[in-house]
Amino acid sequence: MKTQTILLKERPKATPEISNFEFKEEEVASLSKGEVLLKSIYISVDPYLRGRMRDEESYIDPFQINEPISSAIIAKVEKSENKDFNEGDYVLGHLAWKEYQIAKGDNLKKVDPNQAKLSAYLGILGMTGLTAYFGLTEIGEPKEGETVLVSGAAGSVGSAVGQIAKIYGCKTIGIAGSDEKIELIKDKFNFDEGINYKTTENMEKAISSAAPNGVDVYFDNVGGEILDATLQNINRNGRVINCGAISQYNKKEMPKGPRVEGVLIKKSVKMQGFTVQNDFGDRFQEGSKKLAQWLQEGKLNYEETIQEGFKNVPQAFIDLFSGKNQGKMVVKVSDE
Amino acid sequence: MKTQTILLKERPKATPEISNFEFKEEEVASLSKGEVLLKSIYISVDPYLRGRMRDEESYIDPFQINEPISSAIIAKVEKSENKDFNEGDYVLGHLAWKEYQIAKGDNLKKVDPNQAKLSAYLGILGMTGLTAYFGLTEIGEPKEGETVLVSGAAGSVGSAVGQIAKIYGCKTIGIAGSDEKIELIKDKFNFDEGINYKTTENMEKAISSAAPNGVDVYFDNVGGEILDATLQNINRNGRVINCGAISQYNKKEMPKGPRVEGVLIKKSVKMQGFTVQNDFGDRFQEGSKKLAQWLQEGKLNYEETIQEGFKNVPQAFIDLFSGKNQGKMVVKVSDE
Repeated sequence: MKTQTILLKERPKATPEISNFEFKEEEVASLSKGEVLLKSIYISVDPYLRGRMRDEESYIDPFQINEPISSAIIAKVEKSENKDFNEGDYVLGHLAWKEYQIAKGDNLKKVDPNQAKLSAYLGILGMTGLTAYFGLTEIGEPKEGETVLVSGAAGSVGSAVGQIAKIYGCKTIGIAGSDEKIELIKDKFNFDEGINYKTTENMEKAISSAAPNGVDVYFDNVGGEILDATLQNINRNGRVINCGAISQYNKKEMPKGPRVEGVLIKKSVKMQGFTVQNDFGDRFQEGSKKLAQWLQEGKLNYEETIQEGFKNVPQAFIDLFSGKNQGKMVVKVSDE
Repeated sequence: MKTQTILLKERPKATPEISNFEFKEEEVASLSKGEVLLKSIYISVDPYLRGRMRDEESYIDPFQINEPISSAIIAKVEKSENKDFNEGDYVLGHLAWKEYQIAKGDNLKKVDPNQAKLSAYLGILGMTGLTAYFGLTEIGEPKEGETVLVSGAAGSVGSAVGQIAKIYGCKTIGIAGSDEKIELIKDKFNFDEGINYKTTENMEKAISSAAPNGVDVYFDNVGGEILDATLQNINRNGRVINCGAISQYNKKEMPKGPRVEGVLIKKSVKMQGFTVQNDFGDRFQEGSKKLAQWLQEGKLNYEETIQEGFKNVPQAFIDLFSGKNQGKMVVKVSDE
């Protein structure tokens, strides 16, 4: 049996390009005891994968040249030699970008297609929802009546952050890159205010107008100049959650900016980075339960952009960096 | 009765200069009910006062032009119309740079000259000791076996931080600006390693050699390039305590440096600024008790640089920025 697989052909120099990836056909090995044969259904593409394409030490090993890329994938069990899984089960796992693959059962989690759409397990009920939940509540510690600013607010993490902040009784301001996204975050994700950074000349002033009482919590998905502008508006004892820095990921050289230590001291501000798997991996059950509950209660909406076809996975990943997605970006590579 | 007083004549443009200050003789008002007449004994000069000389919003109001400067002062009660204070009592208060002044009793705290040297209440048992204690233990959360790096390690705060980290079972590395200071921090303050940043070409490498297991906690009194070099050596879940940024205080323009958000995310690092009065002001009793206990047990040494004479207060303050002090800098302006 043959399968298509997607390899990292060369490390992207700046923004990833199609030529960085290579499709290769390979033989699927035969099934041994304890293993399952999986068919990929939904492949998650995420900005953090850009970091793994760099050859440097990080919280997770870099991808290797001429080796498959991997990410969170929802797959269907086609054959099973593992007593914990039956043919027809749907599972979530960190898997290779392949149409078919053999996997051990250890790191697979069964998901229920009757409880939520399968793709939701890659988004609001998966890593992105957990990232929003733990980052905001554990690092941001939002209190009722505070102002929470979110960048990448139309994205999968940002849109969840805004809604969770609202559940906590906060005023929410979202930053996004088009008027359409601003409408979306206000209408669907319950943000009180929105700022389109692409049509705003002075972000510092725009944040100040939207947050007349200052910013107490900033959930940062983008880094760079929007972070600088926010720090000019941060309140005493403000908290900055450094979740992502998509504005910086494709830079060739170490980016420079205004030094932060002065404002951190002057206003007793905390900036804290995290990655949900490493820092809250032992509390996922607690987080998933909360998220599922809010989803059921209708307190959490989510958006997803679903691309189709295994051959379009690299382009879907590349499109993340020009903001073509609204909400979680996934690629449906096969029928359920 | 007349007294000399020191006014802020003009705001320093970069490093403070003698011409920024003015001495003026004024009449001491007469004593009303509830007030005390104080004679200044020890005046504390501190880097943070530089911030108050700027005309900008901060955690504490700026000094006004042609108005007296103020700081922590140990004074003797010369006359009292306040039942809580007797003639001859020694008090600690945030007071004006004057030889004599009238004060209400509210914000004065009695200090006991038999329990410790009077000047110690401005240092190890006062703000500097409390700054070291709360910053390190509450923000830094040092754990046994971890590596704690301290800049400004020969200073009043830094030298206390190193010793407290040692009490917590950490490996301690101090950064200071002369070989003499490096000897001092190893001999007297129990640091395991020392780095003279003035004779070190590559700080990143020097920190890496001194901390082969990486830096878990960085107590930063200086900011700037030493902070950058440390972030290159920080461990996963590292903590940076932004206590001071003396390297930046005299800059005319907003200083720039490498952006930090990338490393904060990649290694789940926390950077947090604080000012002890604002953030831990309600826990001073707890902190003072701990410090006094360690002092008594011989676990805490301290160094102080005592200048003499009221007329030398501005120069003592200026000397802070060229590192002329070892440990807490105070000016003895009158006999006890």
